[in-house]
Amino acid sequence: MPQRLGPPRDEPLFERLAIVGLGLIGSSIARAARHLNLARCIVAVDQDEAVVGRVAEIGIADEATGDLRAGVAGADLVVLCVPVGACGAVAAAMADALSPGATVSDVGSVKASVVAQVEQHLPKGVHFVPAHPVAGTEHSGPDAGFPTLFLGRWCILTPPEGTEESAVDQVAAFWTAMGSNVEIMTPQHHDLVLAITSHVPHLIAYNIVGTAADLETVTQSEVIKFSAGGFRDFTRIAASDPTMWRDIFLHNKDAVLEMLARLNEDIALLARAIRWGEGDKLHDLFTRTRAIRRGIISSGQETPEPDFGRRREEPKA
Amino acid sequence: MPQRLGPPRDEPLFERLAIVGLGLIGSSIARAARHLNLARCIVAVDQDEAVVGRVAEIGIADEATGDLRAGVAGADLVVLCVPVGACGAVAAAMADALSPGATVSDVGSVKASVVAQVEQHLPKGVHFVPAHPVAGTEHSGPDAGFPTLFLGRWCILTPPEGTEESAVDQVAAFWTAMGSNVEIMTPQHHDLVLAITSHVPHLIAYNIVGTAADLETVTQSEVIKFSAGGFRDFTRIAASDPTMWRDIFLHNKDAVLEMLARLNEDIALLARAIRWGEGDKLHDLFTRTRAIRRGIISSGQETPEPDFGRRREEPKA
Repeated sequence: MPQRLGPPRDEPLFERLAIVGLGLIGSSIARAARHLNLARCIVAVDQDEAVVGRVAEIGIADEATGDLRAGVAGADLVVLCVPVGACGAVAAAMADALSPGATVSDVGSVKASVVAQVEQHLPKGVHFVPAHPVAGTEHSGPDAGFPTLFLGRWCILTPPEGTEESAVDQVAAFWTAMGSNVEIMTPQHHDLVLAITSHVPHLIAYNIVGTAADLETVTQSEVIKFSAGGFRDFTRIAASDPTMWRDIFLHNKDAVLEMLARLNEDIALLARAIRWGEGDKLHDLFTRTRAIRRGIISSGQETPEPDFGRRREEPKA
Repeated sequence: MPQRLGPPRDEPLFERLAIVGLGLIGSSIARAARHLNLARCIVAVDQDEAVVGRVAEIGIADEATGDLRAGVAGADLVVLCVPVGACGAVAAAMADALSPGATVSDVGSVKASVVAQVEQHLPKGVHFVPAHPVAGTEHSGPDAGFPTLFLGRWCILTPPEGTEESAVDQVAAFWTAMGSNVEIMTPQHHDLVLAITSHVPHLIAYNIVGTAADLETVTQSEVIKFSAGGFRDFTRIAASDPTMWRDIFLHNKDAVLEMLARLNEDIALLARAIRWGEGDKLHDLFTRTRAIRRGIISSGQETPEPDFGRRREEPKA
């Protein structure tokens, strides 16, 4: 896995890159694109005036504007970095300001719904290459971004049938340049894969943190104090952006509910094994799951350091 | 929160410290105790010959032996660092080799069961101060330990009624010296608190990793590749020691099943909100859980770095 970004390109991939929505992902794209010279001009578009001001202040784009149509006009790549529930409205609002031959992409964590929302609004001659960089942190906003966020991570493209190959290649080159590995699949399969690897884990984490807060037998201060026993690992992802995640669940409803049902069946078996003292069943599962962890580490999607490197430095005795 | 261990004591707290079981916790205690001069002599006892050999090799104890009775003889502090299911058998086997006035402690993640298992075997005049350091990593064995594991973490003591105060004070001083904060509560309350902050999170993590591995619509390689979307946070704790965790669930059955039932009720509500498109309910919960994360960070039980410091270093653009 590469540990650093490559050198800047001599020639940019795009003339004018418009990023719509400057949160964690949008602002990381801006930083990476600038660092790597992926676009001659980077335009930051955000409906929130405070964000536009902040982007101008920290100087991660060449232009910053609240005017969507002016921002995307003349762009050869437009990347929507807004909550998935807002993609349709943004597409509708910018549609007739798009240049012929432009490519529209996005970074949404749900793909079938985004395709259904966006495609209908785009004029003929504008390409649409939906994308999902599987990367993030629990922080939000333009200050949370950093240029190496996508390094060594996967970016999934889900181009609708009939999309021009050259447009897909350009978007793939954009993500490859930022250090990502690109994979292409259907929107439906994407939504199933992400339901289990991302959406349901987030839902479970939100749920367990919420349940813990509501207990009458254990105080919130106790939950916080003794969180190092495992609970705190759940709280990181339960601190993610609420609007983004509300939209993900509402827009990937079927796959999330299906995966949740599977989980519930399995947890019922585990609960039964505990109730009846069937230690072997528990031990078997716990041994099996260790192997998956090893796979994730050896694939470079995780570091092997204990405790995610939270371990404090002190010479070994 | 202290970032480093203090200087070694001029006078040790104990003459002979016997650590029974040299896994992650036992070997971390040995390292910390030696670094801080908490005992004049540290004896490592393990039933596994390979562990005894390894402990001698890395030199983290003054003596290493497979002979439990010889190891605990003459010790003024004996700390059981074995899976909670093994505590009763170890107590029975060592009971009549214990010195009068010695203190026996443990590090088990369940307390009511350990008290019930151990207390009956201890001879009169031997003190029993059960302890649970709420600290750990997903790694096991004598090489996984490190002396700062307990720094800034909580150690819960659950002395049975009537335990001599001086013995409780000594064990508290031992953990305080290793950098822990000490709290005293009943075994029953401990087991409830840990069920929600540690045991159920581990069970859920094991379960979701197991379910993901069994899916027929998503391959294991896809689960691994796209794990950065949240799933990998669950795999760390699902890589913890299988025997230790099997014992925890079997020995804290009632509290775990009760907490699991609460979780299931809450997740049913969330599933319903998703099915019926009730975005506000989701958004409310997701906002509430952010606050708990902040509490954990400000209490020093977690670092604020995004992604647990997994973020790669690269200058910001």
